Amino acid sequence: MRFVSYRDGDAPGVGVMIDDDSFVSLSSAAPDLPNSLRGILELGGDALARAGAAAQGRAADYRLDEVVLDPVIPEPHALWCLALNFQAHIDETGLTTNKYHPHIFLRIPASQVGHNQPIVKPTGMEFYDYEGEIAAIIGKPGRRIAERDAYAHVAGYAIYNEGSVREYQRHNRHFGLGKNFEKSGSFGPWMMTADAFGDPAKHTLITRLNGEEKQHCGLDLMIFSIAKIISYLSEGYTLRPGDVVVSGTPGALPGRKVNMQAGDLCEVEVTGLGILRNPVIAEG
Amino acid sequence: MRFVSYRDGDAPGVGVMIDDDSFVSLSSAAPDLPNSLRGILELGGDALARAGAAAQGRAADYRLDEVVLDPVIPEPHALWCLALNFQAHIDETGLTTNKYHPHIFLRIPASQVGHNQPIVKPTGMEFYDYEGEIAAIIGKPGRRIAERDAYAHVAGYAIYNEGSVREYQRHNRHFGLGKNFEKSGSFGPWMMTADAFGDPAKHTLITRLNGEEKQHCGLDLMIFSIAKIISYLSEGYTLRPGDVVVSGTPGALPGRKVNMQAGDLCEVEVTGLGILRNPVIAEG
Repeated sequence: MRFVSYRDGDAPGVGVMIDDDSFVSLSSAAPDLPNSLRGILELGGDALARAGAAAQGRAADYRLDEVVLDPVIPEPHALWCLALNFQAHIDETGLTTNKYHPHIFLRIPASQVGHNQPIVKPTGMEFYDYEGEIAAIIGKPGRRIAERDAYAHVAGYAIYNEGSVREYQRHNRHFGLGKNFEKSGSFGPWMMTADAFGDPAKHTLITRLNGEEKQHCGLDLMIFSIAKIISYLSEGYTLRPGDVVVSGTPGALPGRKVNMQAGDLCEVEVTGLGILRNPVIAEG
Repeated sequence: MRFVSYRDGDAPGVGVMIDDDSFVSLSSAAPDLPNSLRGILELGGDALARAGAAAQGRAADYRLDEVVLDPVIPEPHALWCLALNFQAHIDETGLTTNKYHPHIFLRIPASQVGHNQPIVKPTGMEFYDYEGEIAAIIGKPGRRIAERDAYAHVAGYAIYNEGSVREYQRHNRHFGLGKNFEKSGSFGPWMMTADAFGDPAKHTLITRLNGEEKQHCGLDLMIFSIAKIISYLSEGYTLRPGDVVVSGTPGALPGRKVNMQAGDLCEVEVTGLGILRNPVIAEG
């Protein structure tokens, strides 16, 4: 099953995809459920399954192009991101990372938009860069989760474009504002449930800019798996439903590295999951 | 005026202090206002002044020790923190920072508690450390704010204990989880309005552990002022009502550096603002 977060005018809602282009609105199919995906996940138990079942056999309420798609989880309690989690990306940046401990930083909700929404190249910046990644969305809460149990805490997966302003990243050892420019990243198009998606390591990530492949990498090449990252975070933090764990990005294909410009179209695909597509616009 | 965020049972509320120990609840004095300080700030205009005026002349509804105090803003959109913003702290850590750009990282709401609530020393960690700081709370939203205009965007100030788990901070170049352990920090006791507090640079910060002074420093020694930090953040981000900007910590007094242990009482005072007090307990 695949769930979208959307707005029709100002009203937020959750939809269940019935094909690649259209969805059933839970506001009509299951009005007793919360109107946010985080809210449904917080109910726990079989709430997500009930939401999916409520859409079964119904006709579509909306096509994707009739609504504004929000980030899959518009307001997570925490949006944990990985730095330097693929060797090719470590090599191309010249940065270093710890062999034993995942390299964690945070993004804020305002730094992301949903599928089809424009991402924003800041004024005066030359090095505004895509980073194709996969995001795991927490369903079951937990603290001190063993790596072998971690996937049981994942409700589903989505695609993330972890757009970055390199000039600001380089101001200090923390990436800070460089990873948190307003509407610089994207999170979508939907959450596919973990049972439908399967093992992330068996899938491939491809990033295209204006149709040309820029990244192409098996997700088995993550240094720290999603399970390992969840286990590490849970050493200090009680993971909450709707929390997001973003994988880190692979390297660029040799000779293909470029930055994003206004007018570009950036697509991040994860096989079996879908394509996250965003036009790039100039700030202001 | 001073505002607290509290819970009476599960019900969140906002209070207006009428002396150092007791407050008028806005749920009774101004039931038309939102039941969160962020909500009141988001109304803009004179909402904060109206909230204060509604409490005038009323008898106290609660003493502080009758309720659970929440962090001043329990769920800010962003909680921006400063690394290495006092020379003595740079010297004692041996870390480096950029002379021209504030050094930014983020905390998540779950990493903080309110005044009088226990902060938690994680199991097996030796280097769980206090960091006394001052926090500015944004009232008026804005993007690309000039440094000279920045204080007009501050609704008020509070005290922050930016509790840190050094072992985890050292895992990588990003402090990551080391700054985000569950309930490791504290944010309180109240927000004092900017007009009542005045210029942060004219005040002094003092941290005491079990009554002994550990930090004692004028806030004029910040390398990047609150105004400069706000201006920098607004280059990439539209500051929102309820956002929090935390100043970074001074160095320890010579020979006084110790870490926090279960059973300790940690106090951070900012002159003219109050004292933020938290007992330290062991995890679990």
